[in-house]
Amino acid sequence: MTYDLWYWDGITGRGEFVRLALEAGGIPYRERAREPGATERTLIDDMQSPRAHPPFAPPYLVAGKMTLGQTANILYFLGEKHGLAPDSLEGRLWVNQLQLTIADMVTEAHDTHHPISADDYYEDQKEAAVQRARGFRDERIPKFLGYFERVLTGPDAWLAGGERWTYVDLSLFHLVDGLLYAFPKRMGTVASHYPNVMALHARVAQLPVLQPYFSSDRRLAFGDGIFRQYRELDAA
Amino acid sequence: MTYDLWYWDGITGRGEFVRLALEAGGIPYRERAREPGATERTLIDDMQSPRAHPPFAPPYLVAGKMTLGQTANILYFLGEKHGLAPDSLEGRLWVNQLQLTIADMVTEAHDTHHPISADDYYEDQKEAAVQRARGFRDERIPKFLGYFERVLTGPDAWLAGGERWTYVDLSLFHLVDGLLYAFPKRMGTVASHYPNVMALHARVAQLPVLQPYFSSDRRLAFGDGIFRQYRELDAA
Repeated sequence: MTYDLWYWDGITGRGEFVRLALEAGGIPYRERAREPGATERTLIDDMQSPRAHPPFAPPYLVAGKMTLGQTANILYFLGEKHGLAPDSLEGRLWVNQLQLTIADMVTEAHDTHHPISADDYYEDQKEAAVQRARGFRDERIPKFLGYFERVLTGPDAWLAGGERWTYVDLSLFHLVDGLLYAFPKRMGTVASHYPNVMALHARVAQLPVLQPYFSSDRRLAFGDGIFRQYRELDAA
Repeated sequence: MTYDLWYWDGITGRGEFVRLALEAGGIPYRERAREPGATERTLIDDMQSPRAHPPFAPPYLVAGKMTLGQTANILYFLGEKHGLAPDSLEGRLWVNQLQLTIADMVTEAHDTHHPISADDYYEDQKEAAVQRARGFRDERIPKFLGYFERVLTGPDAWLAGGERWTYVDLSLFHLVDGLLYAFPKRMGTVASHYPNVMALHARVAQLPVLQPYFSSDRRLAFGDGIFRQYRELDAA
C-alpha cells in the first residue's frame, strides 16, 4: 500500500519527522499537497472532508481506510507496522515517550518566534520573542539536550538501545538539525556538552538509507517553519 | 500490582489526566509525592535516580520494573492494559490522537499565563500573557472545542464511539473543567456552541465510578497549575 502524507508544502515542519521515518523505512508514500496542481486549498479541503477520524491539523497520514493525525501517533503506527520501533510493548512505549519529549521541545522551539500567537506575524511579537528565546537558549536547550545525553549510553548508542536505529533517532537528528540551523551561536557554545547527542546526529546524517532522500527534491529546506533563522533570537 | 504515580503535590496539573484514568478504571495506585513525609525533593530525587528509562518530567508511573513518562504515553499503556481504550489498534491510535490534541490545548492553556518562561513569575510576563490569552480565547478555544464537537456524533456519544467511555473522555472532561475554571466569562459566551462537548463534560462529572474520588481528599483543587484564575486573562 502507498500511503498518502498530507502536510503544508514548502516547509519541513512537523511533516519532516514523518518523512524521515517513511524514507528511512523504505515505505512508499506520496505527498499529496506537493503534487502538481495541488494548492494549500487542496490540503484544507481534504482535511475538512467528512471522515470517521478527522485530523485536527497536518501532518496526517492516510493508510487505506484509516486516517492518522498527530506526528507522534503516526510514528507509533509506522514503528509498529514497519519495524521502525522495538518489538516489545515496553520498548515501543519508551520510544513513544522520547518522541513526545521531542515534540515538547519542538513546540517550545516554535514558540521562540511566535510566543503570543501562531496566527500573527513574527514582527508583531518580536519583543516577546526575544525574551522567550533567551529562556529557551539558556534553560531549555540544556535541559532537553542534557536529558537525551543522559539517555544515550555512548557515542555509538541509539536512544532505544539495540543495534539498529528506531524512528525516534531520526526525530532527534532532525531536532538537533533544527537547533543548529536556528541557534547556531548557542549550539556552538553548548554542543560539546552533549557528545552522544551530536554523535547520533552525525550518524543519522550519514545513514546510507537516507542519502537518496537527502539529495532528492523531496527534501525541503527549513524555510518559514518551526526552525527559523532570526539573528536577534540567537546568542552564544 | 499497585502502581506508583509521581507528580507534584498540591496541583491537579497533568497528573490529573492520569489520576482520572486510574480512579475510573478502579486501578490501585499510590501517589508517592503526596504520602506523609514526602517533599518536592523526594520527587526530584526519585526522578533523577538511575533507571533504564528515565522520565523527563512528572507525571510518571512506575509499574513494577517499568517507568513510564509523558501523560499520553502513560494513558496509552493504561488504556491497553486495563481496557480503558478500544481493543483494535486503529481504535487505540484514534484515542491516542485525540489525547495528543488535548495535550496540545493544555500546553496552550498553560502558556496563556506563562508565554515567556515557565520558570519566571506570572507577574513578570503579565503583559505578554494578556496578549496571548486574547488569541487563546478568540481563536484557539473555538478551534479546539469545535474540533471535538465535530468528532462527537451526538449528546450521548463518547469520543471513540462505542457504548462506554475511554480514557480520552475523562481527559476531555478535565480539559473543559479547566477551561470553565480559568475562562468562565469566555466559556459563558461560547459553551452553547459545543453542546455535545458540554454534554460529555456533564456525563463524566456524573459517572458513578468517579464519585468516591471526587468526594475524597485525593481530588485536588486547581490551584497554581495549568488552569489558573486570573481575571485579566478572561473576557466574554
